[in-house]
Amino acid sequence: MIFIESKENTVYKEAKKLKERKNRNKINKYVIEGFRLVDEAIKANLDIDYLILTQAGYEKLNNYIDINKVENKKKYCIVDNLFKDLTSTENPQGIIAIVNMENKNLDFHGDFYLLCDKVQDPGNLGTIIRTAHAAGVNGIILSKGTVDIYNEKTIRSTMGSLFYMPIYYDDDKFSLIKSLKKDGFKLVVTSLESSKDFFKEDLKGKTILTVGNEGNGVSNEILDLADRRVKIPMPGGAESLNVAIATSIIIFEKVRQNSN
Amino acid sequence: MIFIESKENTVYKEAKKLKERKNRNKINKYVIEGFRLVDEAIKANLDIDYLILTQAGYEKLNNYIDINKVENKKKYCIVDNLFKDLTSTENPQGIIAIVNMENKNLDFHGDFYLLCDKVQDPGNLGTIIRTAHAAGVNGIILSKGTVDIYNEKTIRSTMGSLFYMPIYYDDDKFSLIKSLKKDGFKLVVTSLESSKDFFKEDLKGKTILTVGNEGNGVSNEILDLADRRVKIPMPGGAESLNVAIATSIIIFEKVRQNSN
Repeated sequence: MIFIESKENTVYKEAKKLKERKNRNKINKYVIEGFRLVDEAIKANLDIDYLILTQAGYEKLNNYIDINKVENKKKYCIVDNLFKDLTSTENPQGIIAIVNMENKNLDFHGDFYLLCDKVQDPGNLGTIIRTAHAAGVNGIILSKGTVDIYNEKTIRSTMGSLFYMPIYYDDDKFSLIKSLKKDGFKLVVTSLESSKDFFKEDLKGKTILTVGNEGNGVSNEILDLADRRVKIPMPGGAESLNVAIATSIIIFEKVRQNSN
Repeated sequence: MIFIESKENTVYKEAKKLKERKNRNKINKYVIEGFRLVDEAIKANLDIDYLILTQAGYEKLNNYIDINKVENKKKYCIVDNLFKDLTSTENPQGIIAIVNMENKNLDFHGDFYLLCDKVQDPGNLGTIIRTAHAAGVNGIILSKGTVDIYNEKTIRSTMGSLFYMPIYYDDDKFSLIKSLKKDGFKLVVTSLESSKDFFKEDLKGKTILTVGNEGNGVSNEILDLADRRVKIPMPGGAESLNVAIATSIIIFEKVRQNSN
């Protein structure tokens, strides 16, 4: 166990840097926080680089985490007032893990993908990832301009589902979407402007479901590439749905159709 | 226009008291904040008692709100440092409205109700109300122990849908649910313990869909009263769904079936 008591400590400095997206992408690491998420990360066999704990966190470690699984990991014990700089929660539990980003196997398998086109709110993206994991979505494609999956709020909202869900990044020409379309995938795009009832759409077979930005919806490039433009019917009075809510409705409709 | 510059001002004191649920219920008023929501409240013909504005808020009023519709309302102009005590947002827009609670027409009509059984998170309840409004749900029944609909976070998350959605309060013996069942309503309860596929359920006709508490699900009394216990199928890896997400999936399945 190594102790961190100074702001000049290089481990402290690295962990603090990782609060910013540009540094995460440079260093290829990200931060997860709290016992539940760290436990999930261990179970998901993530490549944990090291753990940083407060004294209180260290004393509780045994209660939450299978100690044997982290005995070979480097552990740092940090004073409380420095730990605060590394967390983003109001009542931190006294544990963070620094995780190495991995190149997951990015082969496409299965017939069920979700495209998030410029979703901006970290909590929305996290909830979408959690819901997609429950629905058995095979992977999520993110367009340029979508919020970072390693944002601390996104990670927290995924409730650990992030560690299991394959995530793909498309370029600004949507090369990945175009190649999937050539490979037989149907691109189904929800848009408030469409008049076609989403629930009348056949979603069996290779399908990419699409949701867009909270304020502006799906971008024009994606609308142009769409094989189907559809709208979730809203017989009531509200004019729109939260994007995570809309996503859950469309992906579980494919779950329903797949089981029929 | 009346100016408020002192903490001893009775209007200031009343508005501040309304941040607590017990005071809202005693005084029968609640607070809504921000131009968008106040505008929605005016459009929905809510009984606005008075407006409190900062100088900056007053200067912008004209840009957001049809001035004619509030010309007969009492307006108070308050100094910024007192206004902060009355709001709950980080960047307040400088306007709140104090609204009289109304006894809405509580006749039951239609065939589509939602029971929220001890939902705890204000943001979840707000999102549920917004989604139910979009789906054309006829009303929402809240069990004892459910978070207050007039919580500032709930109101904000409804995006104004609260002003249109009939809300019913059941007692701790579920008398309302029992009487609706006698009246031919089918009580459909989602529970992680059930093995029945929700999507196989016939939801046409008089139906009350039910969701429960974030941590504990639906209470035993409601499970006992249920005509059907069902589970949203989760073919993927995640074990549970956020309660607002689960609600959206079940209510839009009734929307789908109703349109078939």
